[in-house]
Amino acid sequence: MSMRYLSASVAAAVDKELMSTQAFSLDQLMELAGLSVAEAVLKVQPLEKGSKVLVLAGPGNNGGDGLVAARHLSLWGYSLSYYYPRKSRHEHLIRLETQLKNLGIPEISTAAEVAAALSGPSKVNHVIDALFGFSFKPPMRPPFDEILRLLQESQDSVPITAVDIPSSWDVDQGPLEGNTYAPEVLVSLTGPKPAAKFFKGRHFVGGRFISKDFAAKWDFDIPPYIGGEQVVEVTEKEKL
Amino acid sequence: MSMRYLSASVAAAVDKELMSTQAFSLDQLMELAGLSVAEAVLKVQPLEKGSKVLVLAGPGNNGGDGLVAARHLSLWGYSLSYYYPRKSRHEHLIRLETQLKNLGIPEISTAAEVAAALSGPSKVNHVIDALFGFSFKPPMRPPFDEILRLLQESQDSVPITAVDIPSSWDVDQGPLEGNTYAPEVLVSLTGPKPAAKFFKGRHFVGGRFISKDFAAKWDFDIPPYIGGEQVVEVTEKEKL
Repeated sequence: MSMRYLSASVAAAVDKELMSTQAFSLDQLMELAGLSVAEAVLKVQPLEKGSKVLVLAGPGNNGGDGLVAARHLSLWGYSLSYYYPRKSRHEHLIRLETQLKNLGIPEISTAAEVAAALSGPSKVNHVIDALFGFSFKPPMRPPFDEILRLLQESQDSVPITAVDIPSSWDVDQGPLEGNTYAPEVLVSLTGPKPAAKFFKGRHFVGGRFISKDFAAKWDFDIPPYIGGEQVVEVTEKEKL
Repeated sequence: MSMRYLSASVAAAVDKELMSTQAFSLDQLMELAGLSVAEAVLKVQPLEKGSKVLVLAGPGNNGGDGLVAARHLSLWGYSLSYYYPRKSRHEHLIRLETQLKNLGIPEISTAAEVAAALSGPSKVNHVIDALFGFSFKPPMRPPFDEILRLLQESQDSVPITAVDIPSSWDVDQGPLEGNTYAPEVLVSLTGPKPAAKFFKGRHFVGGRFISKDFAAKWDFDIPPYIGGEQVVEVTEKEKL
C-alpha cells in the first residue's frame, strides 16, 4: 500500500471542512491532535527513559497542539516545561496555557534558557517541536530562527518529536538547501504532508477524527490504528 | 486506600470550577469524558465479543458524553446506533450529533425501536446509558421512564455501561426503593459519586483532566491511571 499525502492546499481545505461541514470545534480537534502527539511521545520516550520534556510552542495552531500535548504528558507523570514566546490571542489558546500554569508547569521565556535546557548535565530528555505546521512560509523570524539553530545543534543528543512537519521544512519540498534540521520523530496530523517523504526517522500519524468517506473524498488514507489508540506508527512497508 | 466520593453539590462545584478557574471549555471536557467512556467499553466489550453498540443519550451533558463515546467507538470499528429523543440546543451538542450523522451512524427515534434493539436475534451487544448524570432529580419523565423500564427488562441479556451514575439512581443514595436497575459497568467521571457505593459491577473512573492539587482541594483522589489511558478500572481493594 503506497502512502498518500496531503499537499498544503489540500490540508488547508481539509482543516476548513473539518470545522464547517464536519462540525468539529477547534477545541475538539486540538485536544485530539495534541493527545495523539502525547501518545507518540509516550511510545518513543517512555517514562523510564527519562521524563523531562520541553515543549516549544509556536504562535499558531501547531503551538496549540503542543500545549495540549504538554498537559497530557504532565498528567501522565512527565516533568514538563514550555517555551511560548509569541502567544496567540485566540481564547482557546489562552485557556490551554492557563491549564498548563494550573498544573504548575514552568514556562521558560528566553532563547538562552532554551539553550540551557538543551545542553549540560541536567538537560531535558525530549523536545516537542510545535513551532510551525503546514502553513509555515519562510523565512523563520526571530526568535524562532535562533531556536531552530539550537535544535539543529542539539538534535544528536536530545531527541525531538516534530508536530505535523519539522519546523522550517517546506510543506511540499521538505528541507530546503542547507537545512540540516532532522528530528527523530514526526507525528503527521490527519495525514502526512509531502514533506514527510523526506523524513528519515520514526513516523506516526495521529488526529483520529476522520471518517473513511471523508478521507476518500480528499484522496488520502486512514492509517491502520490499533484499538482505541490515537496515533499509529507508519511502517517502512507502508512508506513504499 | 479508601475511596473518596464527590457529593452532588461538590461535583457541581467541581464542574463549575473546571470551566472557570481551571479554564477548560465544555468541548474539551466532553471530548475527554466521552473518550474515557469509549475506552471503558473497548475494555469490557472488545470488538470480538460483538460490535453492535446502542447509545442512549439524554438531554444534558451526560448525553453529550455519550455522543462523543459513540463517535470514537464508530471510528474504532464498532457498529453504532443512537437514541437521542430530547435534543439539546447547545451549539456543541448540535455539532456532536452532526459528527455522528457524518459517520453514517443511524439514529433510532422511538421507544419501540429501542425495545427492538434490546431483544431478539439481532439485538445489540452493548448499551451505553448516557441518559442522566449526577444532577438528575426524579421523577423520570417520558419517554425516559419507558426506556428505563426496557433497560431493566434487558439488563440480564444485554450488558450496559452507565455514564457517571446509573440513570434513575439518586446521586447520594443510589437506587431508591423498588428500583432494580443495575448496569454491568459504571464509568465515574472525574471521581465517583456516593451512588457508586451501591454499585456491584465493574467500576471505572475516567475524565483525566484533574491535577493532584485540584483533587486535594476538593477532597477526592486521582485514580491510579496507567500510561496514557483515559480510564482505569477501580479494583475491590480500592473500594474497601
